[in-house]
Amino acid sequence: MTETVTGTTRATTLTLNSDMGESLGLHSFGNDAELMDIIDVANVACGFHSGDPDTMAATVAAARDHGVRVGAHPGLPDVVGFGRREMKLTPEEVENLLLYQVGALSAYLRQADVELNHIKPHGSLYGMLARDASLMEAAARVATLYDVPFYGLAGTEHQKVCERAGVPFVAELYVDLNYDPAGELLIQRRPEPTDPAAAGERVRRVLDDGKVEASDGTLLDIEFQSICVHSDAPNSVAVAQAVRDELSGTN
Amino acid sequence: MTETVTGTTRATTLTLNSDMGESLGLHSFGNDAELMDIIDVANVACGFHSGDPDTMAATVAAARDHGVRVGAHPGLPDVVGFGRREMKLTPEEVENLLLYQVGALSAYLRQADVELNHIKPHGSLYGMLARDASLMEAAARVATLYDVPFYGLAGTEHQKVCERAGVPFVAELYVDLNYDPAGELLIQRRPEPTDPAAAGERVRRVLDDGKVEASDGTLLDIEFQSICVHSDAPNSVAVAQAVRDELSGTN
Amino acid sequence: MTETVTGTTRATTLTLNSDMGESLGLHSFGNDAELMDIIDVANVACGFHSGDPDTMAATVAAARDHGVRVGAHPGLPDVVGFGRREMKLTPEEVENLLLYQVGALSAYLRQADVELNHIKPHGSLYGMLARDASLMEAAARVATLYDVPFYGLAGTEHQKVCERAGVPFVAELYVDLNYDPAGELLIQRRPEPTDPAAAGERVRRVLDDGKVEASDGTLLDIEFQSICVHSDAPNSVAVAQAVRDELSGTN
Amino acid sequence: MTETVTGTTRATTLTLNSDMGESLGLHSFGNDAELMDIIDVANVACGFHSGDPDTMAATVAAARDHGVRVGAHPGLPDVVGFGRREMKLTPEEVENLLLYQVGALSAYLRQADVELNHIKPHGSLYGMLARDASLMEAAARVATLYDVPFYGLAGTEHQKVCERAGVPFVAELYVDLNYDPAGELLIQRRPEPTDPAAAGERVRRVLDDGKVEASDGTLLDIEFQSICVHSDAPNSVAVAQAVRDELSGTN
Repeated sequence: MTETVTGTTRATTLTLNSDMGESLGLHSFGNDAELMDIIDVANVACGFHSGDPDTMAATVAAARDHGVRVGAHPGLPDVVGFGRREMKLTPEEVENLLLYQVGALSAYLRQADVELNHIKPHGSLYGMLARDASLMEAAARVATLYDVPFYGLAGTEHQKVCERAGVPFVAELYVDLNYDPAGELLIQRRPEPTDPAAAGERVRRVLDDGKVEASDGTLLDIEFQSICVHSDAPNSVAVAQAVRDELSGTN
Repeated sequence: MTETVTGTTRATTLTLNSDMGESLGLHSFGNDAELMDIIDVANVACGFHSGDPDTMAATVAAARDHGVRVGAHPGLPDVVGFGRREMKLTPEEVENLLLYQVGALSAYLRQADVELNHIKPHGSLYGMLARDASLMEAAARVATLYDVPFYGLAGTEHQKVCERAGVPFVAELYVDLNYDPAGELLIQRRPEPTDPAAAGERVRRVLDDGKVEASDGTLLDIEFQSICVHSDAPNSVAVAQAVRDELSGTN
Repeated sequence: MTETVTGTTRATTLTLNSDMGESLGLHSFGNDAELMDIIDVANVACGFHSGDPDTMAATVAAARDHGVRVGAHPGLPDVVGFGRREMKLTPEEVENLLLYQVGALSAYLRQADVELNHIKPHGSLYGMLARDASLMEAAARVATLYDVPFYGLAGTEHQKVCERAGVPFVAELYVDLNYDPAGELLIQRRPEPTDPAAAGERVRRVLDDGKVEASDGTLLDIEFQSICVHSDAPNSVAVAQAVRDELSGTN
Repeated sequence: MTETVTGTTRATTLTLNSDMGESLGLHSFGNDAELMDIIDVANVACGFHSGDPDTMAATVAAARDHGVRVGAHPGLPDVVGFGRREMKLTPEEVENLLLYQVGALSAYLRQADVELNHIKPHGSLYGMLARDASLMEAAARVATLYDVPFYGLAGTEHQKVCERAGVPFVAELYVDLNYDPAGELLIQRRPEPTDPAAAGERVRRVLDDGKVEASDGTLLDIEFQSICVHSDAPNSVAVAQAVRDELSGTN
């Protein structure tokens, strides 16, 4: 993020991504249908924290029909905890459960004639990889095998390991989670709804001066190329639209 | 259902039951909170077709707080299919999976100091037991062990086996599923929403003359002591209220 | 199977296949290590009826190291029933659960730089596809998508649908399951152990005169290009070796 | 453990316990059949880390037939990891998953007309409760609800919380796991086999002078009323017999 990149220019290259396909059988989840019209990139759940074969097939087909790129969104094997209960895993276990889920998604991509766009882990697995280099190295091996970028948090092991391993790294900004003063995300089991105006404001500010306000008011420099909006808040469509409007300069 | 029981008298002894506790982790399901104010009896999911330990604890506590009686609502081990994909099981397997689920629920009942009211199987398991006497005999053994009634469909193996086994039988009327001309329920994976007025009308009619109209117009004599309203339709609260109004004679 | 193909010639083109990778976490299953030295083709479990990410990775690597070809062995989502309890599924559900499992396996194949050799469904799913053309059509679509042969039973919907759909079909002979007089396999939840000498005898006979004796003594004409030996009997290694000896003409 | 209790006297009140019922469908696990003849107390798996309804029913029936007391052996919801991968859980989650599993087991006990003897958590859950008082308080509430003792490690939160909560506490000695110098168990995902003679020697020594040798040679004072032998080592029957012989003074 160099000084010569102005907000407006930069906005045109930024993408909006969202976690999709987190329904499970009859249990619908998220506002996928409406969000597909707004986002650029879908992170599709792969059946471990949520998602199921029918949901995955439908989600990939919907993304293709909307021109939305599809990445894998693999999680911990814990449907009841929605992948948000940390588990102690070895690097080998992480590598193999990522392979399993990315592979499973690849079948629906093959069916829909769509390329895998990236890998972005879900929930606690995302956090575990951000903090533990050996686990993140396992993830980087999977990204290398599939020759795709990894979506994660700048400044964490996500980025450091990707750089060492030669895996393209796409840094994310979160508009519906809080950051602590050290720039770490405050992940909650059941996140609070976000005010769309506040989400838009966060985007406007970071486009203007590159700063994001942490939970205690600290101003953080957050590097990012993609903005994540969660799909499951009741107002997630409004939040996504507010972000899109900022990116489009229509606000 | 003797001839001397008029609709009004009978309505005072009829109960309204609903399947509850079918959320799964973050995947909420059904309108449990509102329905607890309207129903008499909750059939609580036990974790095989849906439900999880935290949901079960919360559902039993909520039922107790609303004075709603609690029965077990065990299902097939198939979360993705929501227990609505028939499986070939032996009587021994049915007995053991019923025991497992009824036992699991009994822990939350013990914690809440509530008695188990009845057993009512879910989805395809309900249908399998209605048709197969040897499977239903397995279920009757579990009801006998727990000394509780079995909720089911009059005229099917539910009733026949209960009568032979000495298990008290509570016959159900369904207001949001269709009956075929033989009086069997037409169970769908994703049921259609029911018009509250039509549900109320079905109850009024059956209270008046004991008749329910099957999908082809045939008039069926349906015997029942409890009316089931499903919890998961968007308008299930309105449907339940319409039924309650008929039972209360306030319509 | 033309008359000019003698037993000896034919034996050289026949393969020996076995279901592999059916361990589950600490629960080991089958005699995979010893069998890898004997078989030509491994059908690797994909995590629904058994198998897990670590087991799949290890099994694919072992197959590659032994020069054993690897096919997908997808099953019903039922670990407790080991995929041997039939479930009512729609063709769409069958297609999607096959895609999921074949895709998952493909990740370990990609990692091991091994091509997918074929698809052979497991247990009750195998039987369901043998009997139901619409389900088998779903499976044929998956085989077409991956451009691989389907392993199954000659004369059943396996073969008929493959022929209509242009999917290469590899017919199997079973030496450790019984055939009924109509040539259907008698699948048991816990199969009986097979006598290695009887298995060898069955192979010798079918190589000699193309006949297999059904459970009632009927002589069946069984067409086949591959012989399946199950991996989990205590003596499965001896059974496989007896079959291998017949194929090699060393008996 | 007072000084006046001699080895011989003490041995007569000590029990031998083992984890049982850890088979899963067709995946058999452990040497339950042989061990039932040797042990006093079975800790029966409840379906989360392993075990299934049919296995639980059979295990409880076998224990009753052998006069072996039955406790609940609840674990983390992770079959692939066999409950040996730590998960971050809240006290409420721990309480509810213990209730679920103890309740499930109670159904088979009711069927077999056997009383619940105790609760002993499995694997990582055992370790988590040993270290975290708030989680252990959740477990103590479940033991209180069922009015049964808790089996655990002396000196850890197992014992401290039980004492505060008024839950009877039964301290265990492990003969097939190593202790670190602080007296904590070294739990491994796939434990090494134990030499029966060494297990017998450990028991003889601790009966003689109350000392157990830690992995570094440190002599630990281990308080215990029951000795645990794992069921799944190939030689677990020999290990259990060696311990039994020491307790019986036949060695």
